[in-house]
Amino acid sequence: MKKVVKFGGSSLADAQQFKKVINIIKSDPSRQFIVTSAPGKRYPGDIKVTDLLITYANAVITHKPTENIIDQIFKRYSQIGNEFNVDEAILLDIKQKLLKLQETNFPDNKYLMAAFKAHGERLNAELFAACLNKMKIAARFVDPSEAGILLTDDPDSATVLEKTYENLKKLQFGNEKLVFPGFFGFTEEGLLVTFSRGGSDITGSILARGLKADLYENFTDVDVIYAANPQVVDRPAPIEKLTYREMRELSYAGFTVFNDEAIIPAIQGKIPINVKNTNHPEAKGTLIVSEKGFTPKHKVTGIASSKRFAALYLHRYLLNKEVGFTLKILQILYKYGISYEHMPSGIDDLTIIFDKKQLTDELTKKVCADIKAAVHPDALEWIDDYAIIMVVGEGMRTKVGVIENIIEPLAKNKIAIHMINQGASRISIMIGTRAADADNAVVNIYNNFFKSEAHSKI
Amino acid sequence: MKKVVKFGGSSLADAQQFKKVINIIKSDPSRQFIVTSAPGKRYPGDIKVTDLLITYANAVITHKPTENIIDQIFKRYSQIGNEFNVDEAILLDIKQKLLKLQETNFPDNKYLMAAFKAHGERLNAELFAACLNKMKIAARFVDPSEAGILLTDDPDSATVLEKTYENLKKLQFGNEKLVFPGFFGFTEEGLLVTFSRGGSDITGSILARGLKADLYENFTDVDVIYAANPQVVDRPAPIEKLTYREMRELSYAGFTVFNDEAIIPAIQGKIPINVKNTNHPEAKGTLIVSEKGFTPKHKVTGIASSKRFAALYLHRYLLNKEVGFTLKILQILYKYGISYEHMPSGIDDLTIIFDKKQLTDELTKKVCADIKAAVHPDALEWIDDYAIIMVVGEGMRTKVGVIENIIEPLAKNKIAIHMINQGASRISIMIGTRAADADNAVVNIYNNFFKSEAHSKI
Repeated sequence: MKKVVKFGGSSLADAQQFKKVINIIKSDPSRQFIVTSAPGKRYPGDIKVTDLLITYANAVITHKPTENIIDQIFKRYSQIGNEFNVDEAILLDIKQKLLKLQETNFPDNKYLMAAFKAHGERLNAELFAACLNKMKIAARFVDPSEAGILLTDDPDSATVLEKTYENLKKLQFGNEKLVFPGFFGFTEEGLLVTFSRGGSDITGSILARGLKADLYENFTDVDVIYAANPQVVDRPAPIEKLTYREMRELSYAGFTVFNDEAIIPAIQGKIPINVKNTNHPEAKGTLIVSEKGFTPKHKVTGIASSKRFAALYLHRYLLNKEVGFTLKILQILYKYGISYEHMPSGIDDLTIIFDKKQLTDELTKKVCADIKAAVHPDALEWIDDYAIIMVVGEGMRTKVGVIENIIEPLAKNKIAIHMINQGASRISIMIGTRAADADNAVVNIYNNFFKSEAHSKI
Repeated sequence: MKKVVKFGGSSLADAQQFKKVINIIKSDPSRQFIVTSAPGKRYPGDIKVTDLLITYANAVITHKPTENIIDQIFKRYSQIGNEFNVDEAILLDIKQKLLKLQETNFPDNKYLMAAFKAHGERLNAELFAACLNKMKIAARFVDPSEAGILLTDDPDSATVLEKTYENLKKLQFGNEKLVFPGFFGFTEEGLLVTFSRGGSDITGSILARGLKADLYENFTDVDVIYAANPQVVDRPAPIEKLTYREMRELSYAGFTVFNDEAIIPAIQGKIPINVKNTNHPEAKGTLIVSEKGFTPKHKVTGIASSKRFAALYLHRYLLNKEVGFTLKILQILYKYGISYEHMPSGIDDLTIIFDKKQLTDELTKKVCADIKAAVHPDALEWIDDYAIIMVVGEGMRTKVGVIENIIEPLAKNKIAIHMINQGASRISIMIGTRAADADNAVVNIYNNFFKSEAHSKI
């Protein structure tokens, strides 16, 4: 039995949390491969180390003094290190690495930012290995360069290259714990690049696949994954078990407990994922498994919503008669390096839904102007506050009449639906609304499925 | 008051029908602009003149004897002409034009085919004008070249150029009836090209806009447009009035009574369309109007379905993260001159729906192979029997809970839904099913809306 265990930022925020994590590792010898995040918030209002590192990077870019911010970052590590009595040499090394960052040359500020941010995880892994040693647990820090984690050349949104898995097969180790920093890797040219934010989950998943783990335990600060966002729905039902693809669809639309992209290596390696709570490790957590042999308990497993979208609506007669209409539009998007999310169409209209993350007001204006000039639409409208709601459940494949129960509460509450899209996977229904309507929609859909199922038990 | 009146093929199939049409024209002096189709079927099993002309064209292309087929075509016209005692010179001219076709040089066989087919309408318009004159009604034949009907250079699927409308403004005429052949026009280089099949409706609509008619009467062989295909649903409800865009969405998915593209010039010119029956001209028919001031009587106006589609299903992880994924696919389609109809997507999957008309088995194989090579999907599936069902109604915009009534009967009858798409227009819901399920789906949706509304009247 081999396990990869990943700890989130709040699980490694201070010495107190380090101790909890060490106890978790001690309690199960199969927890050999450990992935660390950067120290997170210790209390509400605290600043995450990653955010401190961004401040540091910006100071360097704008030639501002850096002494204070370096001190502030170092203190986060030294406070933990001192509590564990780690060797002075370790803390000195951490200080040196922090200082060295500002003297390093980077190809451009994107790579600079990537390297600065990555040090949150990197230094934390180094410190954590030292703490384990102090607690008489054999452990060593493994840098992604040693492990051979090779990524695409996208400084802040890299994806893993297949070669990584061959490299991981060759990794040499004995019975000691291996502590990997999450979130980053290197390009084939040796440049440090990071995954998108929350990328430590991805590192854990890659290691689980590459090291052929039996289980990937993902420790965070919630007992379970809930069927809806607890900030939107009052005391939502816990999810004991769900499938990879259910998780993936839910992550896409705002379930941030587990990173969207992190599911893929686990699927490829057929490794179950257990989301657990560092502060409550005896709780079973939520298990994410393959759909093979999975029997859904409910019609709907979860309801997610995300307000991160914008949409472009185009209308032109005989739109879908013209070969190359959409091609022209996609070429414009490609020119500006913009990907789209979905493109539902009617007879004479087309809506293109974007992740707003990639957009600025200026870029939006340029794209709209270029599209107007290229395809001469009869109408063009930019919708800046677009939300996507995903209603997800393996149970939807076999049970009939699910969609009525999704649409009915929205209709009753006069929530305008801009798009309904049932994909080929048939385990989800995607609904587009105005951002302002999204929470209300989730609550009403949730109540219709979960409250009525609760009633039927009585 | 000015009217454009168009007569379909069955309305002009023989002398008997010619007489009915002449009575219709006589009964209302505002019916000044007449558009003719080619003579259609006189009885079940008869061959339409257009199909005879295709046989003639193919004989010429393959260097087969043409004498018999020319005789057969000519007979259709001469039988009518003789019944009206038209001058021998007219019939001789028709014969000469038929004979001349095989001696004309065309840029390629597509233009040849267009010119041959167009003669069905052209000769019928000439003959009809002569018959009107024989009945002491002043009339003259107007060729599209005289009217200035300019089309794009697509031999069998041309669309109208805006210049046409300027040309029509300049057309000289007095009080005589003008008889225009439907279905074709000329490119700016003077080549004869046709609309897609059923294109006489388009000619009528273009003339109605260009000549600023008050009404466009479209005479065919049904009393009204029904809320569903009478071959699928038993005695469907008649539609008294519907909007342009309702008609357009219904035409798209198989309501062939009125041509899909023909609605657009009427919309642009704000000209109401009245679909009427040549064999029953006193019936009010169906009126197609602007949505301004239109009050829908029912939630749903009509339910159409078309089995003319095929679909390509693609699955790949992180599909929508990649800038340019769909672009690569559309470039391949563009290379082969293929347009797509709809492209619904999930998180990691994409379905591309095609009109099968443009596809051959060979082309499909090439497209699939090219897409596989270009984007390396995890899964690729070709679905050759795809149907689209359109449930259309202006009433859906304001009334809630419509979609439940669409989905519920499908769920009850265990009809698998491959796609649900509510477009931005919000007057229609598009549903994708296997072709084999389409009729059953239409019947069930129809019954749910129309039978329950009938009940509620009691």
